[in-house]
Amino acid sequence: MPVINVKMTHEDGGATKEQKEELSKGITELFAKVFNGRGASSAVVIIEEVNTDNYSIGGKTITQIRSETKK
Amino acid sequence: MPVINVKMTHEDGGATKEQKEELSKGITELFAKVFNGRGASSAVVIIEEVNTDNYSIGGKTITQIRSETKK
Amino acid sequence: MPVINVKMTHEDGGATKEQKEELSKGITELFAKVFNGRGASSAVVIIEEVNTDNYSIGGKTITQIRSETKK
Amino acid sequence: MPVINVKMTHEDGGATKEQKEELSKGITELFAKVFNGRGASSAVVIIEEVNTDNYSIGGKTITQIRSETKK
Amino acid sequence: MPVINVKMTHEDGGATKEQKEELSKGITELFAKVFNGRGASSAVVIIEEVNTDNYSIGGKTITQIRSETKK
Amino acid sequence: MPVINVKMTHEDGGATKEQKEELSKGITELFAKVFNGRGASSAVVIIEEVNTDNYSIGGKTITQIRSETKK
Repeated sequence: MPVINVKMTHEDGGATKEQKEELSKGITELFAKVFNGRGASSAVVIIEEVNTDNYSIGGKTITQIRSETKK
Repeated sequence: MPVINVKMTHEDGGATKEQKEELSKGITELFAKVFNGRGASSAVVIIEEVNTDNYSIGGKTITQIRSETKK
Repeated sequence: MPVINVKMTHEDGGATKEQKEELSKGITELFAKVFNGRGASSAVVIIEEVNTDNYSIGGKTITQIRSETKK
Repeated sequence: MPVINVKMTHEDGGATKEQKEELSKGITELFAKVFNGRGASSAVVIIEEVNTDNYSIGGKTITQIRSETKK
Repeated sequence: MPVINVKMTHEDGGATKEQKEELSKGITELFAKVFNGRGASSAVVIIEEVNTDNYSIGGKTITQIRSETKK
Repeated sequence: MPVINVKMTHEDGGATKEQKEELSKGITELFAKVFNGRGASSAVVIIEEVNTDNYSIGGKTITQIRSETKK
């Protein structure tokens, strides 16, 4: 039973219910395909949406990066 | 000093303050018992309550699973 | 840039190089598909293979579960 | 590309935008300094602020500890 | 189905198989007790033992702290 | 007491003891500076070094990326 944890920024209103369902289902099916059925009925997928002030790449928060892109 | 991270779904209004206190205290005491006093005064327990749309088992979100159970 | 962390048991000699490549590629492509290209070139996927003594479900380690299954 | 995850309690109104920017930038620069430039433009820093009811040390939640300190 | 992740230092030869079994069982039973049976058969407990060079408190690695204590 | 978890690839023989000490000390001092002394004596820093087969960016493992760079 694998545990897959997804951390992503919360943007454009956040991921929709359908996107989360699609991602959870897809990751589970993919894992089962790669590992011969393992986790098909037991894989745990957890999605964490993080505020763009709290998520940075290369020293700049995504909020900073997005605002610079808009200039 | 161990760090124990608990991820659980946020359901029925979420865990109460008392439940979180009981869980934190219990995990810390258990760890100290198993490891001869280690962590008794320093163990860190972090509880993360996750929306049922963001938590899936076997490819279905807990929201989906709960709604199917109610049918 | 999402960060996807996979925790799985280390069994049958562990995941092969090809399986890890397939899982990493598949998760990245899936994420990009679900979120309109996001993460296609920047998603981070980390795979942690955990000893079956260190991984338990329902209070039993996978080592215990596997040995009971063989009886 | 390192991934640095910071878990801290959400206190006094939480970390300000400037503090998160300073922490993200500082950690990224520090990592690049220690590891000869690695991660300077790609390090991911994620900051998670946790409710003091959900964060405990030595068996007591930070909420409990703070209220005892005020007595 | 909660996921409980334990990070602890690998010391004195590391946790024994029995200690890991006791910790996994105890955490699962405790969680089920606190949350009215939830997770009793599905809780995932993952134990990560970390080298004392890779684990620090207050700016000093556990290796440093232990060697200072022996002086 | 913040908990800072660093995930990085294990390359060129891995981080040296001195680099881990420098990173742990630096992150702790930085956190205390940004948050007015918080965590100076209690911050936990955990460094996880991950095999390059188990770490991917944009769908390719670091092993793949490094071998393509050498061609």
